Amino acid sequence: MTVAVIYGGTRECGNTEILTEQAVQNISVEKIYLKNYQISPIKDQRHTEGGFQDLNDDYNYILERILCHDILIFATPIYWFSMSGTMKLFIDRWSQTLKDPKYPYFKAAMSSKKAYVIAVGGDQPFLKGLPLIQQFQFIFNFIGMSFEGYVLGKGNKPNEIVQDREAIVAASQIQKTLIRQLETNRRYENGF
Amino acid sequence: MTVAVIYGGTRECGNTEILTEQAVQNISVEKIYLKNYQISPIKDQRHTEGGFQDLNDDYNYILERILCHDILIFATPIYWFSMSGTMKLFIDRWSQTLKDPKYPYFKAAMSSKKAYVIAVGGDQPFLKGLPLIQQFQFIFNFIGMSFEGYVLGKGNKPNEIVQDREAIVAASQIQKTLIRQLETNRRYENGF
Amino acid sequence: MTVAVIYGGTRECGNTEILTEQAVQNISVEKIYLKNYQISPIKDQRHTEGGFQDLNDDYNYILERILCHDILIFATPIYWFSMSGTMKLFIDRWSQTLKDPKYPYFKAAMSSKKAYVIAVGGDQPFLKGLPLIQQFQFIFNFIGMSFEGYVLGKGNKPNEIVQDREAIVAASQIQKTLIRQLETNRRYENGF
Amino acid sequence: MTVAVIYGGTRECGNTEILTEQAVQNISVEKIYLKNYQISPIKDQRHTEGGFQDLNDDYNYILERILCHDILIFATPIYWFSMSGTMKLFIDRWSQTLKDPKYPYFKAAMSSKKAYVIAVGGDQPFLKGLPLIQQFQFIFNFIGMSFEGYVLGKGNKPNEIVQDREAIVAASQIQKTLIRQLETNRRYENGF
Repeated sequence: MTVAVIYGGTRECGNTEILTEQAVQNISVEKIYLKNYQISPIKDQRHTEGGFQDLNDDYNYILERILCHDILIFATPIYWFSMSGTMKLFIDRWSQTLKDPKYPYFKAAMSSKKAYVIAVGGDQPFLKGLPLIQQFQFIFNFIGMSFEGYVLGKGNKPNEIVQDREAIVAASQIQKTLIRQLETNRRYENGF
Repeated sequence: MTVAVIYGGTRECGNTEILTEQAVQNISVEKIYLKNYQISPIKDQRHTEGGFQDLNDDYNYILERILCHDILIFATPIYWFSMSGTMKLFIDRWSQTLKDPKYPYFKAAMSSKKAYVIAVGGDQPFLKGLPLIQQFQFIFNFIGMSFEGYVLGKGNKPNEIVQDREAIVAASQIQKTLIRQLETNRRYENGF
Repeated sequence: MTVAVIYGGTRECGNTEILTEQAVQNISVEKIYLKNYQISPIKDQRHTEGGFQDLNDDYNYILERILCHDILIFATPIYWFSMSGTMKLFIDRWSQTLKDPKYPYFKAAMSSKKAYVIAVGGDQPFLKGLPLIQQFQFIFNFIGMSFEGYVLGKGNKPNEIVQDREAIVAASQIQKTLIRQLETNRRYENGF
Repeated sequence: MTVAVIYGGTRECGNTEILTEQAVQNISVEKIYLKNYQISPIKDQRHTEGGFQDLNDDYNYILERILCHDILIFATPIYWFSMSGTMKLFIDRWSQTLKDPKYPYFKAAMSSKKAYVIAVGGDQPFLKGLPLIQQFQFIFNFIGMSFEGYVLGKGNKPNEIVQDREAIVAASQIQKTLIRQLETNRRYENGF
């Protein structure tokens, strides 16, 4: 059982990353920084003859990375009360993968995963971030993932998140839960 | 007083466009299809020395187009319970414009505009589209625009939206309101 | 197939009632005015020995009235961004009925019904009424009812709702849908 | 600076009360159990000649109790994805107090207070409780109170809340914040 963090932010070591670090410290995770890849907007060709065309970007590479893992942490700054456009581009493309004959097991694979969301914003994120959480709920429901938890943190200027004690503590709680989940699974895999 | 429609979809003549057509028929509008432009993801350089760097894409061109108009209609398919990634990329960049010395009047200009949202999705949009509406509410509040109304339509396959009579009627109501707003304004400009 | 309207308001001929009238005109409906009945707050005795005790109020009478019908319209003024306390008292008591040996078929009966919501408020109901709609979505999902549609109208002073043309039109659309549903059913019952 | 807890639950020592206890332990608070009082549903007489009539119940007594305090904690079980009907009855009556010549300072007094919400439910409260939080946000905005924080806990059977470690920890965080707020204020009152 392994963990991937999917970062939607564009800043190095931004507040979202600092908060997420609290949730994954001392845990081996693969970190995927979406900003380092080229992800094209989806072209909705569900109803086009021939279906979706390959967009020749990095999307499939990232997809295959996340498919390896059992727990996915979606870590995004809150831009305009929603996930970053970059992260949205990535998720939009799932519609293409759902129809892609190369990934017939995509939905089944996703539906066995657990998901967490960590999001940081500057404008009352614990209230104005709630529609974002509800959207992730719908997204995870649709794809069949189990929504295990989230943290909404407050931060604007670099490093400001460390002053949001509630968020730091909540992220640490997620870390404890992750360790428990990984441990339980390890015992199980060992036949205990 | 003039109207622009900002399309976030990727399909030609998709359901969102059909529904929006109900709202703007017989009205002179400028239609902006975001899919026809290159819009880069924002790089959050608010706290970087030197600030935001020009991204050499089509964003500023589109921005200047919408700044000419008084009423903006955001027309987007609902992808994964939110606006399309393409539209999100566009809105994310407003953070850059807010700091751009070329557009010192950006927020003031936006805050005099009226906004509508027209969104079409396949999975219970009139319920699962509500977080999207709440996000637009926060977006418009932040930038100071007046949120005048919205329609959530149901459609998946090409042309399916025409079966959503409630949405079609609601879009026609928006058209009546638009005509009234344009007419009131024309009288006002004429000194009546 | 028959229709009941459950009114949560406290004013005679209030805006909610006027708007609802648009949705049910020329349709035979049973109107239940909750304000005319005594409904006690639930006592949560799910985990008490002996379970729920009869509260000797009008709740069961109202319950039996609504169980007779196939389509339920919940019509409530928006008080403090939610349904009226009176309507909430009524719905809270469903938890008791779910355990009541007198109504073993309660959930099954409810899950065959269709539901509509009509709500009127004075403070941006088409935006600030959305959490109320989401709650009804959860309520109907839980009990198994199908959420067929809703209207959020704007009105504060007596009769003000008639100025909200969008809401009036949307309520008329519900009326057309209701007539279609009743008609379809009638043909079905007649063996056509 | 003093704290009141307003309990909306109907069970003695229920999960909501246990969770709230984490937030107020070692703090002197006044606890108001709404279930112990008679609170009539509001009669909307805003537009009636003569205005609101006294309802001869315990509402004003409770109101005067909470007006004495600077920090209010609204502690409610989540019944049907919303606050309890009992708590809703209480809040609905604020509309009457807003017009009551006996309390001309009501809104001003409320607007200087800080508010917290603690709510416990059995059905995915951390997701399905979000509309409830949004409603409290609108309520507090309207009356001018500052929404300082909330905890959504999971519990159904008696005492089950203690297993929701995230909620217990979050409630403890609120306790720390409360102590800090009270301490800051004490220094201020003492002239430090």
